Amino acid sequence: MEETSLHKTETKEFRGRWIEYVHNLQDHICNELERIDGKAKFLEDKWEREEGKGGGGRTRVISNGSIFEKGGVNTSVVHGRVTDKMRSHLQMDGATWFACGLSLVIHPLSPFVPTTHANWRYFELHHEDGSVKDRWFGGGADLTPYYLFEEDAKHFHQTLKNALDPFGKDLYPLYKRQCDEYFSNKHRGNEMRGIGGIFYDHVRPAGEEDAERLLSFQIANGNCFTEAYLPIVNKRKDTQWNEKHKHWQEIRRGRYVEFNLIHDRGTIFGLKTNGRTESILMSLPPTVRFEYDYQPKEGSEEAKLLDACLHPKEWCTDN
Amino acid sequence: MEETSLHKTETKEFRGRWIEYVHNLQDHICNELERIDGKAKFLEDKWEREEGKGGGGRTRVISNGSIFEKGGVNTSVVHGRVTDKMRSHLQMDGATWFACGLSLVIHPLSPFVPTTHANWRYFELHHEDGSVKDRWFGGGADLTPYYLFEEDAKHFHQTLKNALDPFGKDLYPLYKRQCDEYFSNKHRGNEMRGIGGIFYDHVRPAGEEDAERLLSFQIANGNCFTEAYLPIVNKRKDTQWNEKHKHWQEIRRGRYVEFNLIHDRGTIFGLKTNGRTESILMSLPPTVRFEYDYQPKEGSEEAKLLDACLHPKEWCTDN
Repeated sequence: MEETSLHKTETKEFRGRWIEYVHNLQDHICNELERIDGKAKFLEDKWEREEGKGGGGRTRVISNGSIFEKGGVNTSVVHGRVTDKMRSHLQMDGATWFACGLSLVIHPLSPFVPTTHANWRYFELHHEDGSVKDRWFGGGADLTPYYLFEEDAKHFHQTLKNALDPFGKDLYPLYKRQCDEYFSNKHRGNEMRGIGGIFYDHVRPAGEEDAERLLSFQIANGNCFTEAYLPIVNKRKDTQWNEKHKHWQEIRRGRYVEFNLIHDRGTIFGLKTNGRTESILMSLPPTVRFEYDYQPKEGSEEAKLLDACLHPKEWCTDN
Repeated sequence: MEETSLHKTETKEFRGRWIEYVHNLQDHICNELERIDGKAKFLEDKWEREEGKGGGGRTRVISNGSIFEKGGVNTSVVHGRVTDKMRSHLQMDGATWFACGLSLVIHPLSPFVPTTHANWRYFELHHEDGSVKDRWFGGGADLTPYYLFEEDAKHFHQTLKNALDPFGKDLYPLYKRQCDEYFSNKHRGNEMRGIGGIFYDHVRPAGEEDAERLLSFQIANGNCFTEAYLPIVNKRKDTQWNEKHKHWQEIRRGRYVEFNLIHDRGTIFGLKTNGRTESILMSLPPTVRFEYDYQPKEGSEEAKLLDACLHPKEWCTDN
């Protein structure tokens, strides 16, 4: 069967499995984060898109935890007619669309525990009769430390690589490079907001069987997240920090804000097309500092982190 | 003489007078702000555009003052060939261009002293032979209080109106409305970042005589700034504030960041066309807070300010 002539019922069943996985993953990640934090709990805001537009989401926010100062683990299942804005901004051509994904950002209180972001999404474009015209997966995970611990960077990258490798040894190097390129502040000489991870988009199935393979690929990515991030949290959560460390964390958080509001396609498109503002901007850090032309001292730990953001490194040395 | 066939020497002399005024105004404003602050001094960074591009600027930054936590009063005199990006993004058609202006943003420490922003600029587009093809003035000033004192809002607006009225009674209402429309966070239901002021752009002279009139108009605007802002600083600088007031100020500063990075045309264009990043982003507040779905208590002073940002008011009742 041609990819482009899929029956509605078949893709409905496929979508259903992805939606179910995304909601289970949301539960799993929130549970794990609450368990490690030990103090704060996620609060859920269920929302629906305004009348005439389809779907809604579950925004789950944690704040003022013992470890996590602010974080969100959000899911949404949305659909609608393709608008002119989508056609011009996203080069999307079709009659209707469907999207379902999970998006998370975690900002720890301690400057020694890195911030992380991850997102896994599935998108469909339909013909007027509802049959699938185009569909793809996108996603990735990345790490934003304030102090560089090479063993943490290696662990994070290696865990992602281990999840990707069964689907092709070429994937990790490609998606790692795409991540380095995407999450960079072009207005600051391509300074990355952190030490990267993986990033992929428009990963299209070649047919029904391939769609199953890509669903497994996407699930493998989602499943490895807690394994990639939580051991780092555990290792760094009890390190003592002072005002100087906090100051540097807040300066770097400023770069995070700059990237998200100036360059991040999802954020800008969401805000300009009447997305749910509070769910989109939950990604912004809780406290932030902007200083004129701030430069870390040469040879300092802060300068070492900045250097890693300016010069992407290969963190996985073994195959 | 046709506006479009101005001699190079004539416009050079005109430009020269504007450049001289802008630098004098920078000195004047910096001196006045230093005088009232009594502690901090402006530090100057002189910069030049990279090789092959013309001009440069004087970035003057104040920080950690007794009143002013962070501020910049910047001038630049820049010129160059019209690039493809300028053609497509700014709908600018010509061979070369010239721009000179002053841009300032002042973020006080106290939540009771309002933030202010002002900008006055002059732009020329030239034919290949250097004669003027098009030219215009733009500018304005606006106020961003964290607590609403109606008498302050009235004083600020009335001072701007008094400067504009000699050039046409229709100008203040028009430029006031343009300011309300421009400085609004469209992704937050058109919530303004403050209580406005005036904003104008592409104000073109009809001929040589009219250019002189517009130069006087622009100078009247620049001259009235200290009179509009400093009396408010003096009135509010000694008001005691606490952590609760600071928290609200930092939440509102978050909205300031959102506007500048998501919507402000000058900021976005500057950053995407290799403008001087540190000079452009000096506008960002020193400490900022982002909380999920923060809402001030009904009937509170914070809610009163928010209401004024959501529903622009007429602050000048007399003519």
